[in-house]
Amino acid sequence: MLNQESYVILGDGCQIKGISNEAASLAGHWGLGKLIAFYDDSRISIDGDTEMPLLRTLTSVSKLLDGMLSVTTTIVYGSPNKANSYSVYGAALGEKEVEATRNNLGWPYEPFQVPDEVKGHWSRHTPKGSALESNWNATLAYEKKYPEEAAELKCELPAGWEKALPTYTPESPGDATRNLSQQCQQCLNALAKVVPGFLEINLRFGVREHGMGAICNSIALHSPGLIPYCATFFVFTDYMRGAMRISALSESGVIYVMTHDSIGLGEDGPTHQPIEHIASFRAMPNTLMFCPADGNETAGAYKIVVTKRKTPSILALSRQKLPELPGTSIEGVEKGGYTISDNSSGNKPDVILIGTGSELEIAAQAAEVLRKEGKTVRVVSFVCWELFEEQTDEYKESVLPSGVTARVSIEAASTFGWGKIVGGRGKSIGINSFGASAPAPLLYKEFGIIVEAVVDAAKSLF
Amino acid sequence: MLNQESYVILGDGCQIKGISNEAASLAGHWGLGKLIAFYDDSRISIDGDTEMPLLRTLTSVSKLLDGMLSVTTTIVYGSPNKANSYSVYGAALGEKEVEATRNNLGWPYEPFQVPDEVKGHWSRHTPKGSALESNWNATLAYEKKYPEEAAELKCELPAGWEKALPTYTPESPGDATRNLSQQCQQCLNALAKVVPGFLEINLRFGVREHGMGAICNSIALHSPGLIPYCATFFVFTDYMRGAMRISALSESGVIYVMTHDSIGLGEDGPTHQPIEHIASFRAMPNTLMFCPADGNETAGAYKIVVTKRKTPSILALSRQKLPELPGTSIEGVEKGGYTISDNSSGNKPDVILIGTGSELEIAAQAAEVLRKEGKTVRVVSFVCWELFEEQTDEYKESVLPSGVTARVSIEAASTFGWGKIVGGRGKSIGINSFGASAPAPLLYKEFGIIVEAVVDAAKSLF
Repeated sequence: MLNQESYVILGDGCQIKGISNEAASLAGHWGLGKLIAFYDDSRISIDGDTEMPLLRTLTSVSKLLDGMLSVTTTIVYGSPNKANSYSVYGAALGEKEVEATRNNLGWPYEPFQVPDEVKGHWSRHTPKGSALESNWNATLAYEKKYPEEAAELKCELPAGWEKALPTYTPESPGDATRNLSQQCQQCLNALAKVVPGFLEINLRFGVREHGMGAICNSIALHSPGLIPYCATFFVFTDYMRGAMRISALSESGVIYVMTHDSIGLGEDGPTHQPIEHIASFRAMPNTLMFCPADGNETAGAYKIVVTKRKTPSILALSRQKLPELPGTSIEGVEKGGYTISDNSSGNKPDVILIGTGSELEIAAQAAEVLRKEGKTVRVVSFVCWELFEEQTDEYKESVLPSGVTARVSIEAASTFGWGKIVGGRGKSIGINSFGASAPAPLLYKEFGIIVEAVVDAAKSLF
Repeated sequence: MLNQESYVILGDGCQIKGISNEAASLAGHWGLGKLIAFYDDSRISIDGDTEMPLLRTLTSVSKLLDGMLSVTTTIVYGSPNKANSYSVYGAALGEKEVEATRNNLGWPYEPFQVPDEVKGHWSRHTPKGSALESNWNATLAYEKKYPEEAAELKCELPAGWEKALPTYTPESPGDATRNLSQQCQQCLNALAKVVPGFLEINLRFGVREHGMGAICNSIALHSPGLIPYCATFFVFTDYMRGAMRISALSESGVIYVMTHDSIGLGEDGPTHQPIEHIASFRAMPNTLMFCPADGNETAGAYKIVVTKRKTPSILALSRQKLPELPGTSIEGVEKGGYTISDNSSGNKPDVILIGTGSELEIAAQAAEVLRKEGKTVRVVSFVCWELFEEQTDEYKESVLPSGVTARVSIEAASTFGWGKIVGGRGKSIGINSFGASAPAPLLYKEFGIIVEAVVDAAKSLF
């Protein structure tokens, strides 16, 4: 079992959140050694005095700990009128009370003035720190003699590491992207020396999604060389969305491997079928939302997310088997959106069909139908909106020429947000209600996420 | 303290979720009487065998209970090859194993055939049930004599109840919409006889958001006459999103009163400032997302949400003070989107400015600037997209004429989704990064959510 020293800072509010129980039960189960808590016992939470309305669960928590320092603290110590009161939790003291507090504490210094005594205390440590730093840098002279080992020590990705990723052709048998994702992980794991920080250790979190996300944040933030990925059903991001937002906000490059990406999961029914989730993450800042369509796109996503150490990534992966599509590529995924096929011979196509994930196949099939009827059709994979957004205007125009207003998008999810891509004339095929429990092909038919719907929508625009 | 009998069904997976701890600690704190658990101890969760990887917290949970029936169960009892195995958790048995199980259990009946013996057991109770029902209906003859009391008993809203809601004029002093929301609640509470089910009881959940949402779901589903509302910061919907999706999916009309609706909350900083949340709920099926701009719009939102017993509603409310705007109305809110001012004298305006919540004021101010320069400008409040979507095409065209492609939206949130409303030529002003910690006016300036930005965007479209 893990046996590193762990310190926990506990406030009054912390203990009543569900995530604390998830983390505490994992700590107990994993037998974490030297778990030491500092408990800031101010008896004030944002919901008021903790004595009265809130159950204080400290006693039960303390059984898990090897040591606990409980400090009975006073919130806004020294403030003559507001110390120990809830009113200071969410509001500044104000100029008058700050003045009264300074007088009360006998603090004569100007705002932001550090007293010499304090400065002296800290600067005493500067020579010691400088010596330690020089020493470390001298040790790193090692780097010149053993560059490969040094790169590994610093968890740097050496050139060409991405060659470890699998590639596929349309002749490959095809699979669920959740399985193709595992193939990528296995390739990276087998080459742990190539991607040194990619975590091979499998932590079993149970169904503690919120705790899982938070722990992965800590792993990623511990060092940029550690690359954690965690997995659950896509719909259960609802349980760990708080941790995922912290990934984005604190620039923690966690890889969220989210399987069962749509109604295509079938019989588990609407409680397990994501609808609004893709849109909800496309709207979240500093978050990459990938919907890979096959093996090449899954490998392409891994190529990117492993290097994105300051941005969390979400991979929405299918449970159902998908074919390898002609035209998909790792290089295409790096652009976020790209053309996988076009029979317009360099001219403007009659229509652009835009698909993501499992629906890229449907777009490709609809294109075949329309082409047989003499139409020129472009098929675009829109695997990661955020990466497409980062491309030059020229590139974007080359994929989605503004002169082509006949556009149809297809994605087995909420159509929310697609208006910007398909434009005022365009059509979006998706699902804006909850799903149902049935085999995937039946559900796709029932909700109209089918080739015929794409063909009809395209024809309505000619 | 609450003292109703409560039954809990516990599975193996249930106990490791954070929400269970939130609910259990509330049950203990509130001193719920007669809390009785049925524990289905199959030792199999979706993450595998619970003995090995998961801490079983049953012992600590049981201290809270007045009774517990722990049944050691066998998952897929009777299946000769798959009983007691994880493999059956997420996959059907298959035809062959179903056949083997039927043979093993000696079950000779056809699929969906109810044996006569079982049918007899149930139908024995029919006469008793019919008698009880007749008796109840006879008691309800009371209804004819005392119609008002009967309506209250059935928690029906009598005609004219909405007159209890406050109304405002531009001369009203203005306030934060979170305070205006409290005024509405007080009006409804004072008239508890008018809205009999509107919950006056204040349950203090602490910061257990997920538990709070789940408990409110239960209250709403208990009877359509009970109308629970719960409150926290809008950003903390990330903690209870699972419960909110269950509201939408199970048609539970919970009212989510979400304060601190944007970067306008100021100094708490980006951890407390919602950005993507409005978009994320607009994408969620069967959910009404309201962004009221002032007192009339807040009252309008309450008029609707109290009657929506099969759809959850979210009210995003400001911390900062807002003025009462000319042109806002309860009737307008009922349409979801409506014109609050227009100087085009019935012609097509030069530009349409669309605002929500605290930004409707900015849109109105920008309109004044443009009108002084001789432009015709329409200002539209887009307070609830879902209600606007329900209107007739004629109404929608009357508010957003397709001939007017010069459109500017302003909302202090992610611009994701606005493309559909403003169209290909239009511009959306918002914030697509995380916020920062500073007073609200400074943040609005820093992130460019200001009158000048709207005016400039409009001018770029003339």
